[in-house]
Amino acid sequence: MTTLLESIREPADLRTLSLPQLEQLAAEIREVLCSLIACRSAHFASNLGVVELTLALHQVFDFRSDRLIWDTGHQIYPHKLVTGRFAQFQTMRTKGGLMGYPNPAESEFDLFMTGHAGASVSTALGLASGDAFLRPQEDRHTVAVIGDGAFPSGIVFEALNNGRRQSDKLLVVLNDNCMSICPRVGGMGDYLDRLRMNPAYTGLKGEIAKLLTRVPLLGDPAERFLVQLKEAAKAGLSGGMMFEDLGFRYIGPIDGHNIAILRKYFKMARRIKGPVLLHVVTEKGHGYRPAALDPVTYHAPPQFERRADQYVIAKKKSSPAYTNVAADAILAQMRANDRVTVLTAAMCQGNKLETVREQLPERFFDTGICEAHTVAFAAGQAKVGMRPIVDIYSTFLQRAYDHIFQEVALQNLPVTFMLDRGGLAGPDGPTHHGVFDFGYLRVFPNMVVMAPGDASDLPAMLDFALKFQGPCAIRYPKATAVTNARRPAPIELGRSEQIRSGADGCIVVCGALLNRAVEAADRLKQDGLELSVINARFLKPLDADAIVAAVQRFPWVLTLEEAALMGGFGSAVLEAASDAGVDASRVHRLGVPDRYIEHGERDELLADLELDVDGIAAECRRLAAGTVQHAAARR
Amino acid sequence: MTTLLESIREPADLRTLSLPQLEQLAAEIREVLCSLIACRSAHFASNLGVVELTLALHQVFDFRSDRLIWDTGHQIYPHKLVTGRFAQFQTMRTKGGLMGYPNPAESEFDLFMTGHAGASVSTALGLASGDAFLRPQEDRHTVAVIGDGAFPSGIVFEALNNGRRQSDKLLVVLNDNCMSICPRVGGMGDYLDRLRMNPAYTGLKGEIAKLLTRVPLLGDPAERFLVQLKEAAKAGLSGGMMFEDLGFRYIGPIDGHNIAILRKYFKMARRIKGPVLLHVVTEKGHGYRPAALDPVTYHAPPQFERRADQYVIAKKKSSPAYTNVAADAILAQMRANDRVTVLTAAMCQGNKLETVREQLPERFFDTGICEAHTVAFAAGQAKVGMRPIVDIYSTFLQRAYDHIFQEVALQNLPVTFMLDRGGLAGPDGPTHHGVFDFGYLRVFPNMVVMAPGDASDLPAMLDFALKFQGPCAIRYPKATAVTNARRPAPIELGRSEQIRSGADGCIVVCGALLNRAVEAADRLKQDGLELSVINARFLKPLDADAIVAAVQRFPWVLTLEEAALMGGFGSAVLEAASDAGVDASRVHRLGVPDRYIEHGERDELLADLELDVDGIAAECRRLAAGTVQHAAARR
Repeated sequence: MTTLLESIREPADLRTLSLPQLEQLAAEIREVLCSLIACRSAHFASNLGVVELTLALHQVFDFRSDRLIWDTGHQIYPHKLVTGRFAQFQTMRTKGGLMGYPNPAESEFDLFMTGHAGASVSTALGLASGDAFLRPQEDRHTVAVIGDGAFPSGIVFEALNNGRRQSDKLLVVLNDNCMSICPRVGGMGDYLDRLRMNPAYTGLKGEIAKLLTRVPLLGDPAERFLVQLKEAAKAGLSGGMMFEDLGFRYIGPIDGHNIAILRKYFKMARRIKGPVLLHVVTEKGHGYRPAALDPVTYHAPPQFERRADQYVIAKKKSSPAYTNVAADAILAQMRANDRVTVLTAAMCQGNKLETVREQLPERFFDTGICEAHTVAFAAGQAKVGMRPIVDIYSTFLQRAYDHIFQEVALQNLPVTFMLDRGGLAGPDGPTHHGVFDFGYLRVFPNMVVMAPGDASDLPAMLDFALKFQGPCAIRYPKATAVTNARRPAPIELGRSEQIRSGADGCIVVCGALLNRAVEAADRLKQDGLELSVINARFLKPLDADAIVAAVQRFPWVLTLEEAALMGGFGSAVLEAASDAGVDASRVHRLGVPDRYIEHGERDELLADLELDVDGIAAECRRLAAGTVQHAAARR
Repeated sequence: MTTLLESIREPADLRTLSLPQLEQLAAEIREVLCSLIACRSAHFASNLGVVELTLALHQVFDFRSDRLIWDTGHQIYPHKLVTGRFAQFQTMRTKGGLMGYPNPAESEFDLFMTGHAGASVSTALGLASGDAFLRPQEDRHTVAVIGDGAFPSGIVFEALNNGRRQSDKLLVVLNDNCMSICPRVGGMGDYLDRLRMNPAYTGLKGEIAKLLTRVPLLGDPAERFLVQLKEAAKAGLSGGMMFEDLGFRYIGPIDGHNIAILRKYFKMARRIKGPVLLHVVTEKGHGYRPAALDPVTYHAPPQFERRADQYVIAKKKSSPAYTNVAADAILAQMRANDRVTVLTAAMCQGNKLETVREQLPERFFDTGICEAHTVAFAAGQAKVGMRPIVDIYSTFLQRAYDHIFQEVALQNLPVTFMLDRGGLAGPDGPTHHGVFDFGYLRVFPNMVVMAPGDASDLPAMLDFALKFQGPCAIRYPKATAVTNARRPAPIELGRSEQIRSGADGCIVVCGALLNRAVEAADRLKQDGLELSVINARFLKPLDADAIVAAVQRFPWVLTLEEAALMGGFGSAVLEAASDAGVDASRVHRLGVPDRYIEHGERDELLADLELDVDGIAAECRRLAAGTVQHAAARR
């Protein structure tokens, strides 16, 4: 039953609806969300939480002229449903279908493609600032919606601190569902909890306001104090003094599931000159009881099954992923060595660290979405003798780039970085593909960068890293863990491993595409091509001796990586050949080209980029036949 | 007169001194600071401001076991003077001499080499956390000293938000001198101003405390409110509720030039279990009147002259630097186009934007030390049609790395990055050398990266960038601007410029080493070697056609860059050759090797790295003679 929703072609259609109709529409949206999850894994609980918020926003604002930024972006589904994308909704997160995040290519109502948390307030300030210059006579308002999970990110504070200037028409909606992706941590979370307890929210406001007007004003100096006391009390009443101190007008908290109240306060916020922070309390998973009760599991649950009238999570048994292998290795190392700690930036669930959190809570640190702090904090631990493991997705680690440089690499401190989602992250798309890490990590002196060729390399690399006296990074993809059947050589600094021997050509792989390369080599054997396969293991220091020897010895060398070719592993191989004065014109580089890669299943994307077994085998055949087309010619 | 200071071999020697002796010592330290500035440019006003703070810290804490982090680090001079480095003090900031920032290689009292602002609270938390694990029985305290300029950095907020856990013995000293490097901006600055006005600081505390104890407690619900009111008032009294809200105990503000008071409060802070924020008010330039009156000029003034009994700034006329050329170009563009804005992160002075600030204040944005926000804010402006210029030092832009990715490059927004200090930054040393930008910028699709070959390229590149529909970066060194006498070719996307023609070899330069290459070529002409010189101009998109043609045509090609070789320009040239299937074994890459480069004058460092005229000419001779030693052999 989605009669009403089907009739919404654009947000303007919402404005004619009555309150009961809007509530009906909210129910229909929830039904659509549940049925989507019955098809595929997607963000769920956060979307259930913002249904009323979305409807009220589109009723009060006109985002054809007003500006709307969804921070982080995974709560965009109801917005997509009411901005003309209902018909495509079942294509969500599939290749060629709707993106699970805002996408300006899909709709004029999506302004920024987001996926990383926290930048919304800054971009909103920029939008408001630009509009103030270019369209001062227009009544355009800018709204940023940001969850309490993203809120402690340093950039949010930087933006709030810069909020007063040229932002007369700025509204920040703090969507407070008491959750990051994992249960929230830190002082800001506690502060928001206290705000929710304040008398304005619990109903005492009127009574107290009367009381306050009777406070007498006495002579100086007590007068000055009492005025201050009154101000303090007023701020206590309205709450949010912290935000008021930074220059924002704080309003709230208000009930984020009551459309009438939401509309009232949005209208009020519109009328206020100057930046406003509206504190909205929502329930993650609202309207679907199991999700509301367990929003962590239902953040991005695996598929549902429909049983009778109910959806339940399908208990399909999935093969362990590299993430699981990493988490197990971390736990084992922490058990063996009580100097080892693990740090995650709100990704306890994504990094599968729940067991560590339960079993070794005192050495488990969830810092919230605060990657910069996390890395500098780890550096401090390392300095005094601990062995911290920083477990952060490849693409999110970009947030801590300067601290990888200054606090870790420059000091040559033994911090171990575990970069999950290194490579094509699949349905999350461009903001989540971790393809730049090879290029951005290897520029720093002292950094050791490893990429396991298979699941057996990963624990061995972690073991190596935790014994090494300097910073190490280990990067692996979001993929099912596979093991290459061999007796693996031990991990030694800057040493590669020969996996297959053959004289007709050589594939040098850095990372978990190794098994695809081996499979391609095995397949080509049937064609009479005997190939060598090298598991590079180290991006830095590169095994220059072995790899340059291969460049000299073999008719051709194919470098293979699930990373940007620009500055990546293949580029490091070319540098090594150049440093040795060796002709590398028969080196061909396969990897991620210099464009943003769309969303889709990892296997689909690899196939598109000819990084699957077929693609690798085809490239090898062309190399062997001398018919390979150079990248320059393909441009 | 430095009798007392000479007797201080280590901080322990301070502990026996009387208060008048300490004050005498403070005066001696100021004298030494003034006489240093008479020799060379160095950080000045901030060091004058922390003399008493430093002495009191070393009296109360024993930093052989306690831990001390100086945030940003340029206020380290008094600390160096009392930690056994008085004798070498005149070598400050010279090659081989003392570093102008903390340096663990110099002293056990310097824990982290710092230079970028804001990470101190995070690293201090890490140190405290590690000590809590490893040395729980020891009474080790960790102290971070952070200025109010660094304080609004997002990472500080992230750290405060994470401060409660395992930090029983943590003291954050907020050194509030009402200044960033430029006058401070933003809500936090105003907040600190208000704290300084509070009754505790102005002396009403006792009186009000008495008043408060008489507030009666009534029955519910008013009771609950009054308790809250009382709490609010108490927090108002002690001030710093924002920090208390985040879990820190706030004390202050106190007078940062009164050693007795400082000692008293440091001792108090030591006794408090849990993280403490001590708000200390100092005067930047304290004790030297001209500096106190004009701390911006005296932040890192040019050399002094001693005139009679007084030091005055020497008015030497210096040649304009690339920074000046950039600032002039920015001003000209802003005058010509009212959509152009300029954003700086507290570096108005360093970027020479004072004239812009004065003449076009409404399009000048100083965001404070908030690089991440700055970039995302610029993205917002660009989205609605403005043409923002982000003017941030190469090495500080690392702070905004993820926002260059997500908010700018991924959205393909026309934000122009001006990367000053691209290359070897001279006496500031490793934290300030901007040598990684080539590698870290070119990995992102859509990014256009330019490096002017000379001063005439720079305004032309800015003009190009402001007309281009996508993100552009222009990077140039901290160096005197020089102009290559030629009729410059117009700037066209991905087009290089031939500067000299000759058949015996080719130097391809990306950036301002161009004139050194031309000079080397001219010199070699006298030896009978006719070299070509190409001004690459674009790191990305590279002029692959012209450069690969050069690789094919010339006996050898030397690539030249003032950037890390790892993933840099030379690497891009190798990639282009590889993409074209061309043998690049006769390409040799000159640039910054894979290690951190010490401090020293830029010319000294360039000479060390054979990036000066002599070094370039010598390498060319070796290449011509076929006696060049490959980098691999040199390792």
